[in-house]
Amino acid sequence: MTENEWIFHLSKYLSTESPIVASYNEDCAVITLETGEFLLLTTDAMVERVHFDLAYTEYYALGYKLASINLSDIASMGGLPLYALLTIGCPTPPDSIWIDPLMEGLVSQLHKYGVKLVGGDTVRADQLILNLCVIGKTERPLLRSGAKPGDLIYVSRPLGQSSAFLKFLKKENFDQIPDELKRSHFYPEPEVILGRAIKDFATSAIDISDGLLLDLFRLCVASCVSAHIFEEAIPVGNFANLEDALSGGEDYALLFTLNEKDTNKLEEISGKLQRTFFPIGKIYEGNGEIILIGREGERRLLSPSGYDHFTFQPLL
Amino acid sequence: MTENEWIFHLSKYLSTESPIVASYNEDCAVITLETGEFLLLTTDAMVERVHFDLAYTEYYALGYKLASINLSDIASMGGLPLYALLTIGCPTPPDSIWIDPLMEGLVSQLHKYGVKLVGGDTVRADQLILNLCVIGKTERPLLRSGAKPGDLIYVSRPLGQSSAFLKFLKKENFDQIPDELKRSHFYPEPEVILGRAIKDFATSAIDISDGLLLDLFRLCVASCVSAHIFEEAIPVGNFANLEDALSGGEDYALLFTLNEKDTNKLEEISGKLQRTFFPIGKIYEGNGEIILIGREGERRLLSPSGYDHFTFQPLL
Repeated sequence: MTENEWIFHLSKYLSTESPIVASYNEDCAVITLETGEFLLLTTDAMVERVHFDLAYTEYYALGYKLASINLSDIASMGGLPLYALLTIGCPTPPDSIWIDPLMEGLVSQLHKYGVKLVGGDTVRADQLILNLCVIGKTERPLLRSGAKPGDLIYVSRPLGQSSAFLKFLKKENFDQIPDELKRSHFYPEPEVILGRAIKDFATSAIDISDGLLLDLFRLCVASCVSAHIFEEAIPVGNFANLEDALSGGEDYALLFTLNEKDTNKLEEISGKLQRTFFPIGKIYEGNGEIILIGREGERRLLSPSGYDHFTFQPLL
Repeated sequence: MTENEWIFHLSKYLSTESPIVASYNEDCAVITLETGEFLLLTTDAMVERVHFDLAYTEYYALGYKLASINLSDIASMGGLPLYALLTIGCPTPPDSIWIDPLMEGLVSQLHKYGVKLVGGDTVRADQLILNLCVIGKTERPLLRSGAKPGDLIYVSRPLGQSSAFLKFLKKENFDQIPDELKRSHFYPEPEVILGRAIKDFATSAIDISDGLLLDLFRLCVASCVSAHIFEEAIPVGNFANLEDALSGGEDYALLFTLNEKDTNKLEEISGKLQRTFFPIGKIYEGNGEIILIGREGERRLLSPSGYDHFTFQPLL
């Protein structure tokens, strides 16, 4: 099975009845609580030689990124992350030399967003494997499925740098790679604050973990709409190119939609957070078509491509 | 670090402040909710060639056992399990041939206890690795730390059969191993119903995952007490011996303590559930000493030994 086939296949094992609001095709499971709030549950794993390479990855960065990718799922639902559980699989018993920087990277990033590590499991495994489970809550879950024709599409920051880092790595010495790319790849920042700020008026959101095109495609399919995006509007990070920005993955930027009448609310947030957000296109009626409008006005129907967790080649 | 050193070392990274009631040295993290109830969080992983061997383990049993070992942690806290998240690491993309029996074993065992699978993650890994995270709740968390001098010590069922299975496997053909041992090893049953029934009067509890002695030692250390147990009172499962029962592990029986005045409550539950529970000894003042009183009245101070997840040799 490909990853998409598996996600579809898996759906028959996932519960969907009330009080469960979402269990698949969303970044988190969403469950209605008795208090009227919603519980958010997510889990994401990172595996040595699949997601990271210890030859050039510091343990501190590993822990930091593990926290970030999980918090990013909570962020994309407009959630407040609360608690985390860590599972470590390792070939040799934990040793302070590596476990302390790993834990410090993890815990410092969790604490930055008020998240408490409360438990976990440690097991032997042939390669280092890290799994985090994060529990959060929200008053209003921001789903992938709420985009409506006419909505504007935004991304929260420039894209493609994490993927550009990997391309540089193939042809350059590590030391020659721009620090900015290393930072994007090793220390992605989850959009928790932005997610909280837009949850009451954004119509849909997803975090860009597998590439803008693939994640926009998922959002469009979940919302039963199509999207037009403008090549010149796509924010391409320094040292990255359009392909990195469209299909690179591991950006952990937020991709979200809102009704045109709410742009002033986003402007207000933009002012408060002193950040620029990037309108890249518009939602139309349709069935998941992504149309890229070029600088000369030419239109291309894009097929989503991005990180497939099953076919992706090992980094080594 | 040994497993115990690591658990101690890990404690500095775990949050303990309110509303967190327990984050380490318990089977689950325990968090006070606004409603006055307690949230229970646990995670447990199973790794190919460390915890199971695909040469003789059916995928259905794998899923079943993964559910059971996690539900057992909720059971030992007197909890009602609610939701689960699954992480699968696998060397080849999921294929119906193995993923369907695995998922059916998992989901059928979760559903038996009313637990809903609501999400997860699937990643590539060099060996099959399964991680489950279970969320539950309870009105009163049954901690390891509540045992008091004078309390009676109980185990919920005969011990040692899972471990006896592994010994048989070393010298017998799989087909010649008694079905009863296979059932104990592959299909352990979590004591969710019992945990719920005793939560209001038992003084402490732990599930026996790593062997009676080691788990009793953990309970005694957490409660700042010692224990006397009677050799002839220890329920040894068919085809198992005393060593299996004391140090074998993977029993997932409940080990619990109660005040003598509450034995009638346990008898009532025993009648209702039509089950026998086994009083094996008594709690005394002390600091984690476990004294085994033999059939002739001789006393032995036992050092805890059981499954150490880091030194355990691969099954293959």
